Amino acid sequence: MKKIKFALVGLGRIGKIHLDNLLLMDEVEVVAVMDTQADGRQFAEQRGINHLFSSYEQMIKDSLIDAVVICSPTDTHADYVEIAAHAGIAVFCEKPLDLNLGRVLEVLKLVKAKGIKLMLGFNRRFDQEFLKVKKLVAQGAIGNHHLVKITSRDPKAPPISYVVQSGGLFLDMTIHDFDMARFLVDKEVVEVYAKGAALINPELSRVGDIDSAVITLTYEDGTMAIIDNSRQAAYGYDQRVEVFGSKGMVKADNNLHDTHQLYNGEGIHGSLPLNFFIERYANAYKTEIRDFVLAFINKTDLAVDGNDGLQSLMIGLAAIKSIKENRPVKISEINHNQEISLIIKESAI
Amino acid sequence: MKKIKFALVGLGRIGKIHLDNLLLMDEVEVVAVMDTQADGRQFAEQRGINHLFSSYEQMIKDSLIDAVVICSPTDTHADYVEIAAHAGIAVFCEKPLDLNLGRVLEVLKLVKAKGIKLMLGFNRRFDQEFLKVKKLVAQGAIGNHHLVKITSRDPKAPPISYVVQSGGLFLDMTIHDFDMARFLVDKEVVEVYAKGAALINPELSRVGDIDSAVITLTYEDGTMAIIDNSRQAAYGYDQRVEVFGSKGMVKADNNLHDTHQLYNGEGIHGSLPLNFFIERYANAYKTEIRDFVLAFINKTDLAVDGNDGLQSLMIGLAAIKSIKENRPVKISEINHNQEISLIIKESAI
Amino acid sequence: MKKIKFALVGLGRIGKIHLDNLLLMDEVEVVAVMDTQADGRQFAEQRGINHLFSSYEQMIKDSLIDAVVICSPTDTHADYVEIAAHAGIAVFCEKPLDLNLGRVLEVLKLVKAKGIKLMLGFNRRFDQEFLKVKKLVAQGAIGNHHLVKITSRDPKAPPISYVVQSGGLFLDMTIHDFDMARFLVDKEVVEVYAKGAALINPELSRVGDIDSAVITLTYEDGTMAIIDNSRQAAYGYDQRVEVFGSKGMVKADNNLHDTHQLYNGEGIHGSLPLNFFIERYANAYKTEIRDFVLAFINKTDLAVDGNDGLQSLMIGLAAIKSIKENRPVKISEINHNQEISLIIKESAI
Amino acid sequence: MKKIKFALVGLGRIGKIHLDNLLLMDEVEVVAVMDTQADGRQFAEQRGINHLFSSYEQMIKDSLIDAVVICSPTDTHADYVEIAAHAGIAVFCEKPLDLNLGRVLEVLKLVKAKGIKLMLGFNRRFDQEFLKVKKLVAQGAIGNHHLVKITSRDPKAPPISYVVQSGGLFLDMTIHDFDMARFLVDKEVVEVYAKGAALINPELSRVGDIDSAVITLTYEDGTMAIIDNSRQAAYGYDQRVEVFGSKGMVKADNNLHDTHQLYNGEGIHGSLPLNFFIERYANAYKTEIRDFVLAFINKTDLAVDGNDGLQSLMIGLAAIKSIKENRPVKISEINHNQEISLIIKESAI
Repeated sequence: MKKIKFALVGLGRIGKIHLDNLLLMDEVEVVAVMDTQADGRQFAEQRGINHLFSSYEQMIKDSLIDAVVICSPTDTHADYVEIAAHAGIAVFCEKPLDLNLGRVLEVLKLVKAKGIKLMLGFNRRFDQEFLKVKKLVAQGAIGNHHLVKITSRDPKAPPISYVVQSGGLFLDMTIHDFDMARFLVDKEVVEVYAKGAALINPELSRVGDIDSAVITLTYEDGTMAIIDNSRQAAYGYDQRVEVFGSKGMVKADNNLHDTHQLYNGEGIHGSLPLNFFIERYANAYKTEIRDFVLAFINKTDLAVDGNDGLQSLMIGLAAIKSIKENRPVKISEINHNQEISLIIKESAI
Repeated sequence: MKKIKFALVGLGRIGKIHLDNLLLMDEVEVVAVMDTQADGRQFAEQRGINHLFSSYEQMIKDSLIDAVVICSPTDTHADYVEIAAHAGIAVFCEKPLDLNLGRVLEVLKLVKAKGIKLMLGFNRRFDQEFLKVKKLVAQGAIGNHHLVKITSRDPKAPPISYVVQSGGLFLDMTIHDFDMARFLVDKEVVEVYAKGAALINPELSRVGDIDSAVITLTYEDGTMAIIDNSRQAAYGYDQRVEVFGSKGMVKADNNLHDTHQLYNGEGIHGSLPLNFFIERYANAYKTEIRDFVLAFINKTDLAVDGNDGLQSLMIGLAAIKSIKENRPVKISEINHNQEISLIIKESAI
Repeated sequence: MKKIKFALVGLGRIGKIHLDNLLLMDEVEVVAVMDTQADGRQFAEQRGINHLFSSYEQMIKDSLIDAVVICSPTDTHADYVEIAAHAGIAVFCEKPLDLNLGRVLEVLKLVKAKGIKLMLGFNRRFDQEFLKVKKLVAQGAIGNHHLVKITSRDPKAPPISYVVQSGGLFLDMTIHDFDMARFLVDKEVVEVYAKGAALINPELSRVGDIDSAVITLTYEDGTMAIIDNSRQAAYGYDQRVEVFGSKGMVKADNNLHDTHQLYNGEGIHGSLPLNFFIERYANAYKTEIRDFVLAFINKTDLAVDGNDGLQSLMIGLAAIKSIKENRPVKISEINHNQEISLIIKESAI
Repeated sequence: MKKIKFALVGLGRIGKIHLDNLLLMDEVEVVAVMDTQADGRQFAEQRGINHLFSSYEQMIKDSLIDAVVICSPTDTHADYVEIAAHAGIAVFCEKPLDLNLGRVLEVLKLVKAKGIKLMLGFNRRFDQEFLKVKKLVAQGAIGNHHLVKITSRDPKAPPISYVVQSGGLFLDMTIHDFDMARFLVDKEVVEVYAKGAALINPELSRVGDIDSAVITLTYEDGTMAIIDNSRQAAYGYDQRVEVFGSKGMVKADNNLHDTHQLYNGEGIHGSLPLNFFIERYANAYKTEIRDFVLAFINKTDLAVDGNDGLQSLMIGLAAIKSIKENRPVKISEINHNQEISLIIKESAI
């Protein structure tokens, strides 16, 4: 069997996960790695990868590769995908492609023109919990879908320094939930109403961001989704979904550290949810990259493509507009030619 | 001990529950019952109550009573409370006092002037599940409150004939959830955004109502609540709440028929939630009326008073306005002098 | 409708429950009550019962009754049942009939000869949890039964003064579980192996009793049951059953105070099981006495009869013999003519 | 860092798991593999291991190794450990060391004399569920231990051809539970009473084995454990433990495929337990071998040693004797010089 030759770019937290998962696959050979930092390259070297680069362009030029996994900072994604597209290389890119809608459209146009495969890293689609829910919904187990409910809360608020370059709550965190809302019921969102506040850290208002939000989505057929977000749940990473329909309801709960229950004079006590995305979605990351590899080998459609990234971005931009103007915003209002400020003005609340 | 002399008006489903619960209390003597229907009066007669009336006014005139429980149709509530107020009789009245805001204000003014006790039948406040959640929140178990989530789904959609005189989804059904949202965190609501559709029975659109809704409430301090409603959950009566805060989260789940779990080759199977409010809230009804009796005896404050009814009505009217105009509506926009049509125009969706 | 005339004997904890439940039934009239204590009689008087006795014989002679409920101390049961049998009165008697096997056989013989109805108070058979399990087993939901598991732990060890007259752990407490083991799978037990110790209160050894035990039962067809008992579970009343078979398993869990779950930095916390039999089996007591009344009215078979009391007693006596001799004991070894000391010699452990 | 040189013997189901887990560790170098079958050797070759042997003796002679992992058939274990001991090589050996008590004692004597490390593969000790329970018990969370309950049921009965060479239910399957009973409370077992039958497959009686059993263990201090086993649970692999004590109770439940719950008109439905030991204990295997490696590197005590294997074997032999003679058997009755037939005579039941 001829192995697929992979390169990987960016050895931060996610990049390391993807690299280790790629190394587990017999079908894959990781031939090159690029990181601007020496310790990122060293991580790859310890795993026996010899072609180490500090320049993406150089790597693409000097290496014979079939596919590249892009885990570098967000502001490099669009450029790196374009370079790969010109080189005819398949791309797995961490989300988002870019925070600027016009730029995303440009990239997707080129990707289409060049005919390369582009998969975006919406890892939660590969979580066994959500997959099971989606499968049951698709099989008609709950009849016609009426409502999706997503609870998505991070275990610990990031520092403000991270927040200011993140694109804000909706594009950094909720974007996963927007994708999940589309994924679970396979419907497009047409309207968004978002409400939020900086309840955990009021300092966030100064930089135009929020840490707590409730978002109502309306799908094309008038059915609805609600998402609630918090940047900080004292009890860990809270990731639950529920889909309600004409014949029933299906939900998935958090994955706990263990199932133990201690009964004592005070009550019944159990373990907390797994505490961060790396732990909770460890298997999802494995399945995700394997799915990309298999789609490449079998020449089948990708589970997540560029349009999925585009749709979630547009919902996110509509959410920003909604919270600023305190009104429901239609996705169709999001103008591709207009720069949308990512600053959420808290004064509206 | 001198027993409190009670009368009860209206022996429908709820009236019968209240009557049987009153009869269990040593502190109470039910001296008169009024129902316009013979079989209602007969139900009371079988329980040994001798003074049976078919006219409320007659009953009030002819009987020596301390308190009256009003379970007659909604459109009689305001008049009956006024008559009791003039007679100096304490009132327990099923919600709502009236669907017309101006009328409610009139009645409350008279109640205040006459100094009678008036309690409204928000029975869920006495449910042990919600009481436990409220108590933990009040004790600071979850720190500062950020978000309330209420899931409230009925087991079976009512016939259209009921719907047209009910005040619509928000004033008939969600009004309990509006009260719960205020109750759990002891905060006032200042803004409402409602989204809904007739997903179960599209016929409802013709009579200007909906059967599925998602409502976002904003409290005075910028924190939020989300409510989701359905007139028909295939699996029974779904009544859950969750409160999230800076130090944790507390939630209460449905009460199931039993705890059994059957493990077989297909999966793990358990019993459904108790299927209707009479079953689920049987104990809450008992505690509620007992609470009213004890407040009367001990001359203490009522757990639910006229203002609670007023606030929930105003939230409901704001929700109707919100869904009609597809925008968030401030409670302060609800004008006391303006008649608000209860018809929800579905075309906005 | 002609009401059934009831008398009730013994107004201790259980007697009061039965009396209040009888008073709720339209089909029943409680015409007389007997208690040797004035405050027991007063409890009945407050409920409007006028014929109050301090002598059982007197009450039977002077009253016109169809049925009697016997809740007096254990050592009166046999005599009282015999008196009722001679008078042709139906009997509901709290378990056990007697701790002496020969005496039980005598009574049952008379009951049979006189043709009266005799029901024993194995209240747990009417618990909705266990009924559901039994029903599923009977319907074949788990295929052929292989194993029954019963967890039965009391919330608080009784004082030694109670223990010495109780018949010991097996006849006082486990006897309910022996009945449950027979009830759930509708099979007779043929052999018992019991192991136990005084782990909570070593003082118990001095009076020949234990507070912790594990019992293996073998049914006639070679299938098995295991019971574990403790006189004191720090977390409350623990009452669980599980039945395993060729096609699956069904179990019933404890009834908790409420379903709340508090998530905080330390873990997930919930409420404890209902803390005592009066609370946990409140509904079972209601259903039990109603079942007796209905069997009387409809002239149908009783759900629990004298033989059920006999079988459980024999299993209990075999358990005592087993723990004394540290060997499995066949039920057939229990000799009807031989007095079995209820003293468990702890030295065997 | 100098890597520890490992060899691995026997590439069956477990051998493959251990090999893949060893290959994940930076501290380890797998230098040689032995399997009598070509496809076992090929599995290792595909993972880049070059020194492949079909003779254990040859491998030990020709290779420079620090430690060997023995996963070959049970009847080779004792010999292979002895050879390793003579060569001064540390050993991780799958359980059991041998089914013959005398042989086990011989091997342990040599291991001691040669001073090599010997760890036995009681993988469940490394399961996060059981570890959490043990930790809470050790910390005093439940006070003094009174009772251990272990539910251990396999998903599918093995073929009779497997059973006849397995040592029977107690030495093949329950032996893990005997070890767990010792592990959870850190106490030695002094007496065993076992009851069992061939309920799933009556054919088993012909070969002197059973498929369903209940075992009562008594610890040195008079506290107890109960184990229930079945070779076939229709709903998958059932692995639960519970420890009860003076201050409370702690239990661990099965690991389910996922947490989803489907609510429909029939009930609430969820996923089954993970269906086999390879799935359920995947992480335990990883932790187990890592623990062995770390104990080697850090020269610390092993988590499971030869004595643990010996004790479980003795409990197993006592269980066989108990079921044959239908009486409780003391561990001290197990005579080291006496060959104990592993045939369970079913006629005793």
